[in-house]
Amino acid sequence: MNYIEILGLVAAALSTFSFVPQVIHTWKTKSAKDLSFAMFSIMFTATALWLIYGFLIAALPVIIANGLVLILLGIILYFKIAYK
Amino acid sequence: MNYIEILGLVAAALSTFSFVPQVIHTWKTKSAKDLSFAMFSIMFTATALWLIYGFLIAALPVIIANGLVLILLGIILYFKIAYK
Repeated sequence: MNYIEILGLVAAALSTFSFVPQVIHTWKTKSAKDLSFAMFSIMFTATALWLIYGFLIAALPVIIANGLVLILLGIILYFKIAYK
Repeated sequence: MNYIEILGLVAAALSTFSFVPQVIHTWKTKSAKDLSFAMFSIMFTATALWLIYGFLIAALPVIIANGLVLILLGIILYFKIAYK
């Protein structure tokens, strides 16, 4: 693995786990009014399409990363609806 | 272009522009306390790495998409700091 591939993997890992602090933040504060429902629902749709794309091209890293992000975005959207 | 490529392009376009409604939402409400600074700063870092990665592999779609997202995330982070 060369340094360009490592850079891509670090970027992918950071992109994937960046949603974790938002989940924790919203879970703790029970407040989600400043979150744009449109942003998170468009991103949820995009991630679902990336997941389907990953299955179609049989790319395991795409499937794993987008599967995890889809779960995290699902939790944030649930909070957005539940806490207003 | 086959339907799998079209699916990937739609997913990429949605991922990129999903941040626009958050920019508009925060600009209108002048409130950003529910946004996780950690989420947006980690995502900003990840996007900067994706942009460098795009330049290193000379992939124009990666450069354009991540360049746009970096600008949008920069605006959201500015709002987060300015509005608290």
